[in-house]
Amino acid sequence: MSLPEPEIWRIGLVGGTGPEGRGLAQRLAIAGHAVVVGSRSANRAKEIAAELAAACGDQVSITGADNATAVSDADLTIVTIPYSGLPDTLPPLADSLRSHIVISTIAPIEFREGRPVVLPVETGSAAQEVARLLPESRVVSAFQTVDAHALADLDHELDTDVLVSSDDTEARRLVVRLANGIAGVRALSAGRLASSRYVEECTALLITLNRIYKAHSGIRITGVDR
Amino acid sequence: MSLPEPEIWRIGLVGGTGPEGRGLAQRLAIAGHAVVVGSRSANRAKEIAAELAAACGDQVSITGADNATAVSDADLTIVTIPYSGLPDTLPPLADSLRSHIVISTIAPIEFREGRPVVLPVETGSAAQEVARLLPESRVVSAFQTVDAHALADLDHELDTDVLVSSDDTEARRLVVRLANGIAGVRALSAGRLASSRYVEECTALLITLNRIYKAHSGIRITGVDR
Repeated sequence: MSLPEPEIWRIGLVGGTGPEGRGLAQRLAIAGHAVVVGSRSANRAKEIAAELAAACGDQVSITGADNATAVSDADLTIVTIPYSGLPDTLPPLADSLRSHIVISTIAPIEFREGRPVVLPVETGSAAQEVARLLPESRVVSAFQTVDAHALADLDHELDTDVLVSSDDTEARRLVVRLANGIAGVRALSAGRLASSRYVEECTALLITLNRIYKAHSGIRITGVDR
Repeated sequence: MSLPEPEIWRIGLVGGTGPEGRGLAQRLAIAGHAVVVGSRSANRAKEIAAELAAACGDQVSITGADNATAVSDADLTIVTIPYSGLPDTLPPLADSLRSHIVISTIAPIEFREGRPVVLPVETGSAAQEVARLLPESRVVSAFQTVDAHALADLDHELDTDVLVSSDDTEARRLVVRLANGIAGVRALSAGRLASSRYVEECTALLITLNRIYKAHSGIRITGVDR
């Protein structure tokens, strides 16, 4: 698959009606992309998409559809469901997503007594679990460290780096480009998909800091010139 | 144990002749503390201490001793040995370190084909392993994300946050204060000692980025006002 030029991409969001999905939909639409918010319910997806588009102003393209429709026509797909939803949600989409770029934004985190706990993942990370469930897709890990509340606060630019990892070098490069197109984001390559584990664990650190400092924290890497 | 005022502390470094230990010794000495670099060999420790002090100028206090002597008289102890050295090095020091503040700077990382791999730790993290081996010490996790090369480059201020975690609230507060005293460092509390795992995994991310970008990277948390 080659992505169209100029760089306006059709982006499908699986589980796009959750907090992370909604915010990413808006930021990517503001960056000029055509976003389709996916959900189990097409009606709910359309309703949320209309709300998100209205909040962004008239110039953006955000529509809604059921998950399968959202991804079938997309240049790239972003998975923003909770970790526990992967085994039910992804296998039915595997055929449509064959050879597609699929971005995992997922951190395998559960809350116990209000504290984040990273669940053990046999393959190593949530992104590698996505790759196991979508063996013929080009899986990329990104956006875990971008806080959902910060995404939703459209009056403020983001202030965070996005770490992008994949075993598919071209796909990783394209997602670095996509993330750099969001205002306030700097994307860095973190190498192979196995690095996603470290980013997912960093997400647990950020959630811990959010709890302690009542903040919506992000991460910047210092000492790296790009 | 109460730490002396004004805030000039006697700091013992276990394994202080390694790259991280040497750099921390210098930065802490420049911040005004009296640092004792510990090593298995007292002679080697004294030799390295003299080199480190000379590089810092005349105003600093860096001396050398064997590990046991370095920690016996210290207000606080910093462990900067590799993870694999913990089971041999710490138990003989457990008596001297009873009720002492002990800082673990360790990430349980091995290199395979040049790539960092985080080793599984049954207790959860290297810092919790230090706590298991020193059950009567007040263990604090800090400094993992501070690059050894950046520490050693005395011509440049550091540019990194230090995440400090401990189950001992007062000890954590003191180490936050200690780290904030190093130029270019902002220390944040990351809560309980179990959070150290996330910081240790972030260290693997930074090492991965160092490899990709040929950098000496650090981490800054955004969105947190202190």
